[in-house]
Amino acid sequence: MNRPAVHVIGTGLLGTSLGLALRRAGYEVTLADLSPTARRLAADMGAGTAAEPEDPGIVVVATPPDVAAPTIVEALRRWPEATVTDVASVKTAILVRVREQTTARELDRYIGSHPMAGREKSGAIAAREDLFAARPWVVCSDEDTPSERLAQVVALAEATGASVIHLDPDFHDSSVARVSHAPQVLASLMAAQLKDMPIDGVGLAGQGLRDVTRIAASDPGLWTQILTGNAAEVREVLAAIRGDLDTMIDALELAPGAFASIASLLAAGNEGRDRIPGKHGAAPAKYAEVTVVVDDTPGTLGRLFADVGELGVNIEDIRIDHATGIRLGSVDISVIPAAQLTLTEGLLERGWRVPEAAIEQEGRE
Amino acid sequence: MNRPAVHVIGTGLLGTSLGLALRRAGYEVTLADLSPTARRLAADMGAGTAAEPEDPGIVVVATPPDVAAPTIVEALRRWPEATVTDVASVKTAILVRVREQTTARELDRYIGSHPMAGREKSGAIAAREDLFAARPWVVCSDEDTPSERLAQVVALAEATGASVIHLDPDFHDSSVARVSHAPQVLASLMAAQLKDMPIDGVGLAGQGLRDVTRIAASDPGLWTQILTGNAAEVREVLAAIRGDLDTMIDALELAPGAFASIASLLAAGNEGRDRIPGKHGAAPAKYAEVTVVVDDTPGTLGRLFADVGELGVNIEDIRIDHATGIRLGSVDISVIPAAQLTLTEGLLERGWRVPEAAIEQEGRE
Repeated sequence: MNRPAVHVIGTGLLGTSLGLALRRAGYEVTLADLSPTARRLAADMGAGTAAEPEDPGIVVVATPPDVAAPTIVEALRRWPEATVTDVASVKTAILVRVREQTTARELDRYIGSHPMAGREKSGAIAAREDLFAARPWVVCSDEDTPSERLAQVVALAEATGASVIHLDPDFHDSSVARVSHAPQVLASLMAAQLKDMPIDGVGLAGQGLRDVTRIAASDPGLWTQILTGNAAEVREVLAAIRGDLDTMIDALELAPGAFASIASLLAAGNEGRDRIPGKHGAAPAKYAEVTVVVDDTPGTLGRLFADVGELGVNIEDIRIDHATGIRLGSVDISVIPAAQLTLTEGLLERGWRVPEAAIEQEGRE
Repeated sequence: MNRPAVHVIGTGLLGTSLGLALRRAGYEVTLADLSPTARRLAADMGAGTAAEPEDPGIVVVATPPDVAAPTIVEALRRWPEATVTDVASVKTAILVRVREQTTARELDRYIGSHPMAGREKSGAIAAREDLFAARPWVVCSDEDTPSERLAQVVALAEATGASVIHLDPDFHDSSVARVSHAPQVLASLMAAQLKDMPIDGVGLAGQGLRDVTRIAASDPGLWTQILTGNAAEVREVLAAIRGDLDTMIDALELAPGAFASIASLLAAGNEGRDRIPGKHGAAPAKYAEVTVVVDDTPGTLGRLFADVGELGVNIEDIRIDHATGIRLGSVDISVIPAAQLTLTEGLLERGWRVPEAAIEQEGRE
């Protein structure tokens, strides 16, 4: 397929990352942004040319989500031949607003999409060419969508290295409310509880708290737009969580039956956790874990992984336990079970400290 | 100091790990467990001798938390010279129960402690000699605690590689309610929402959801004991979170003022997150991040880290982004800012794909 010229409106994290990825894939990219400085920065980074195109093949709206709908409508009018897509994390509300303001012919040229990629950082400066590589990219089309336009959007998404998934907008919105929006709210509410506690208490934090609250570092402005844009779906999930939270709080009064309530809430969490796919979209794989205790001196991890490489073992995952107070840490290396013995013995021979290891499920990690 | 003989009661994850660590440090260790099989397994793993000691110097109660108090009382009576400690994650409730059933002289020999270490896995089979290495180990003493007994417990904790922190039991319990118990509840309640959703929707999960729900894989039985053992403190934190959750749910009706409420809840999360100490207990360090995109074929990560090692750069942290659907992933390597350029250029020279990097704060990761 011929690569259509792409015009990206909005040169934040997503727009700039997209420009970088498309340029590398051989697309011609022009850039627009309300802020001339942001547009210039993206252009300087190599994401495209700061110019208004005559006749772009595809327009990608990568503005903040609260202005996505009017920007899509404007693009459909301004470039009457172009396919218009967007990358906002909410799809139904935008589609409804675009439909209200366009003709059926105009609407046929709009295909909503949502690359499931992002960072806790924002702006062009945080952009990376490979932001979309190996991530799902949801494309929302219906029976009226012209197939050649759909193919253009799919080709663009795949050119970034993403994996395209076709979903209905409502299904998309209710799914992301659960897998993305509600987790953001819970991480933020948990982290907010640390705001006023004595610093000696915060010092007891372990990896569990760090993991639960990592995304609490995200941009409040952007997330306010995302949550309000998917308000009904997010409310529904949060209301269900509040119901369970009420049950937990009541149970902690320790009346008869309380222990069973608490245990069953925790067991439901086990079940839900087990449904999250493992690496490569497969069912949770069983990996064996080899734990190595390391001194955190320069070059130690490099030497460790050099040794792992020389042993011919492929690393499926790595977890580094952050040490507190002293310069010592442990590294959990996940490998296929068949490689565990080779790795354990090989590392022991090379003088590494490898405590007894047992075969563990990655799904329980 | 002479190393006192240690008797460990309860050979689960903590007791067995402790035995392994103490044996390595040169302590003589005996083991007890209600289950002869569990005791035998721990002994076979090298955690100590399956025997009843005559006159142990220290008794460590590492039973499930719901039987810790009676086990401590029994140990104080049975070995009238021994110092008795425990490793339960709740301290006030246990101290109160022990105090009710002991004389002041007996009570002087009890020093509660809590190593801030654990895994999502349980049992002797998951034990590791270095479980406590580089972790905080809270010791709860008061003005009546004989200093030589306190020194014994501190020496034992330090022999495992842990870092001792002296805290009041109430302060300990209210702190762990925030940094450990409430995060466990939120992770479980979030994961429970995935239980009944369509699997195609769960497939959109990204690293954010994985991190938020990782500890939802923990053992419901153990956590029921932990949460009920610290019920009042956990309720208080959960009630505060429920207040914020109500505010969020109400705000998502999008009445006037809603956006400000949502943004300020998210901003409070930013503030709380920023208070979590970085690696080595220091204030969040500013690291530079170098992102490398890798094909996930055998040996790739090994070769990457071998190259990093040869470049003489120390790795402060690593994050691997799990790919979905295709065999490609990205690796974020955190290094001190001064090493970023060396690493980026060195890796590019060696043929690695390194998208543009910017200096980032680890604290925002």
